[in-house]
Amino acid sequence: MPLVVQKYGGSSLADAESIKRVARRIIETRKAGNDVCVVVSAMGDTTDELLDLAQEVSPLPPPREMDMLLTAGERMSMALVAMAIANLGHSVRSFTGSQAGVITDASHGRAKIIDVTPGRITEALGEGHVVIVAGFQGVSQTTKEITTLGRGGSDTTAVALAAALHADVCEIYTDVDGIFTADPRIVPSAHKVDRISHEEMLEMAASGAKILHLRCVEYARRFDMPIHVRSSFSPKEGTWVLTTTTEGDPVEEPIIAGVAHDRSEAKITVVGVPDEPGRAAQIFRTVADSEANIDMIVQNVSATETGLTDISFTLPKADGQAAVQALQRIRGEVGFDSIQYDDQIGKLSLVGAGMRTNPGVSATFFKALSDTGVNIEMISTSEIRISVVTRSEQLDEAVAAVHTAFGLDSSEGEAVVYGGTGR
Amino acid sequence: MPLVVQKYGGSSLADAESIKRVARRIIETRKAGNDVCVVVSAMGDTTDELLDLAQEVSPLPPPREMDMLLTAGERMSMALVAMAIANLGHSVRSFTGSQAGVITDASHGRAKIIDVTPGRITEALGEGHVVIVAGFQGVSQTTKEITTLGRGGSDTTAVALAAALHADVCEIYTDVDGIFTADPRIVPSAHKVDRISHEEMLEMAASGAKILHLRCVEYARRFDMPIHVRSSFSPKEGTWVLTTTTEGDPVEEPIIAGVAHDRSEAKITVVGVPDEPGRAAQIFRTVADSEANIDMIVQNVSATETGLTDISFTLPKADGQAAVQALQRIRGEVGFDSIQYDDQIGKLSLVGAGMRTNPGVSATFFKALSDTGVNIEMISTSEIRISVVTRSEQLDEAVAAVHTAFGLDSSEGEAVVYGGTGR
Repeated sequence: MPLVVQKYGGSSLADAESIKRVARRIIETRKAGNDVCVVVSAMGDTTDELLDLAQEVSPLPPPREMDMLLTAGERMSMALVAMAIANLGHSVRSFTGSQAGVITDASHGRAKIIDVTPGRITEALGEGHVVIVAGFQGVSQTTKEITTLGRGGSDTTAVALAAALHADVCEIYTDVDGIFTADPRIVPSAHKVDRISHEEMLEMAASGAKILHLRCVEYARRFDMPIHVRSSFSPKEGTWVLTTTTEGDPVEEPIIAGVAHDRSEAKITVVGVPDEPGRAAQIFRTVADSEANIDMIVQNVSATETGLTDISFTLPKADGQAAVQALQRIRGEVGFDSIQYDDQIGKLSLVGAGMRTNPGVSATFFKALSDTGVNIEMISTSEIRISVVTRSEQLDEAVAAVHTAFGLDSSEGEAVVYGGTGR
Repeated sequence: MPLVVQKYGGSSLADAESIKRVARRIIETRKAGNDVCVVVSAMGDTTDELLDLAQEVSPLPPPREMDMLLTAGERMSMALVAMAIANLGHSVRSFTGSQAGVITDASHGRAKIIDVTPGRITEALGEGHVVIVAGFQGVSQTTKEITTLGRGGSDTTAVALAAALHADVCEIYTDVDGIFTADPRIVPSAHKVDRISHEEMLEMAASGAKILHLRCVEYARRFDMPIHVRSSFSPKEGTWVLTTTTEGDPVEEPIIAGVAHDRSEAKITVVGVPDEPGRAAQIFRTVADSEANIDMIVQNVSATETGLTDISFTLPKADGQAAVQALQRIRGEVGFDSIQYDDQIGKLSLVGAGMRTNPGVSATFFKALSDTGVNIEMISTSEIRISVVTRSEQLDEAVAAVHTAFGLDSSEGEAVVYGGTGR
């Protein structure tokens, strides 16, 4: 019997009615002749409410206790979904992350899945139960403590379980119809993409597209697990995230998958760094030790008369304070002048596997930005992505301009197969 | 170092402020030179809210999933209390019932504690942590499933842990000052009792006094664990529940511990039962098989001319419907006429170890009821208790009359040592 792993997020589980609707959806899949294993997030705003409660009790709660608290959220939703399924006359068992065999490292609040040992799940599926699993949580291999995977961790749970159970597909249910060519709140003419490669999805997620969590896509790519991102409010097909086939007519593949944007980062500029070997290494070692995730890096051309240079990089705003403090401590040692912190930046990324073979993409991209009067502060590229940093207030305009320039606008909301060459 | 086990109920943990107050109270005990292990219930109305949510999703949720759901309540409160303690600068670890080694049978929703294996607790206490444990929950020895002990189960968790850890005292914190001679909402002149024996407390709890759960007191008596029932809102001493010492001057011990009442029961009368051996056994076997807990039983004198008799018994209202249905199924077999169901009854119980040696107690008791015009429908007694069933609407008046007749009224709210003899 085919095995489908489904994941429902908090917005699909907002209240009792939503839970009942999700239960009916699960049972439809079951009745269509599939074994079903379902991963659930916490209901609606539960996680935020628990975070608020924690904040009221303690400004700096111990991470171990935070994980104890937050894991209550999925525990509630998994039990309620199981009850709703039982009420439809189907046998069902719910399991916590720990019971489901989600083994992690010991990093409370952002644990990584090390292994999945789904013995109880396999057994329950074999006995004919629908299985519900609490997403976002696991148990540490070394300390036996309860851990959480961090925000978005339920997607990762679903893909990891799907891989461990050798599922046929991992369906991620959300409150939108799938992956769009851009955020429809910014670009109303953005349209749903029918198919996207793991690789492109990875770049989109890394560039700020919030539908799928980066780690989840990494996991899916590693285990070659097809993901079907779709709406829990509609029966329509969503977006399939698949391994790129080398077959197929490349002319029919869209060059560009979409335009992602991100306002969650800040820029730090270290001003007046002596232009000597090892200085940059010292700086980035220090930032990494403060546990900040560095994204883009730019080093200006050295001003030869002074022998000094500026180094800029971007990182999540949440990591900004710690990084600045860490850098200030090594100022004397490295010998730089000052640190500038700028959290009014935005990042725009154009993603598409077709870039590899279409050399005109970057020209079109920069012309679109230039025509709109957008000032570019930083640039970084991969084989299938171009990202730029702009002022935050210019970001929406920039996204719309790039979306239009690549012919992604669609009044019907249908996917456009874009096959132009040499632009 | 002395070890104190404390238990805080939901009303002491209503919100973030209450949780912080409880944390300060725990730390006071710690600073006074004790190891402290704290058992917590779910916050305020959490359990009721979860029950409501379950009801919205399914009218008859599977008990296994219900336990999964409800155990989230204590999980949240234990983590929050731990955070509040950490915020006061003390090291702390919270543990679920399962982690704390609370081993139960497999009866979801009303599991019994079979064993307590508090290895992780002992270890954490040894490392100098304050320990917080989720009450009301455990893990089944046979199925490894999460179980709950039923309402009031957190008290039982606390006493069971106290016994397993060889604690010096088990403090039960609540929203009243201790055990009262009667419910102060019915008898405003009721006063707090300073000391009460395990045996008397057992009768009080079985008779409807709601401060301590019956099973908790049974556990405390079996393991000879002193319980200190006190208010979490005041530093005053509460009521000590202790093993009766054979020493001490009996004249100084109060004859009567208090007057309990109970409106949670109903009366079933099986009318026209053939007065033959084995009929009553058939009836009570059937009721027991419906999982109803029978309390009092009365069999009327047989009417010799008909050879028929009536059998009445009381049971929790919650069990009433199942019992009536079970009895109706054996009507033909047993050959009785009809079943009467009456849920407008009230039970009044007078409890006191001094009754044993004071033969006048029952005379005073029945005279008080008679003077007030209360009609008695059933009577049952133990060595240290007399209970009567009356009409529900006469119960308050009856409680007040008995309270006064035994000199328990006190305008100052102070404990009265009642040493009369031979009444």
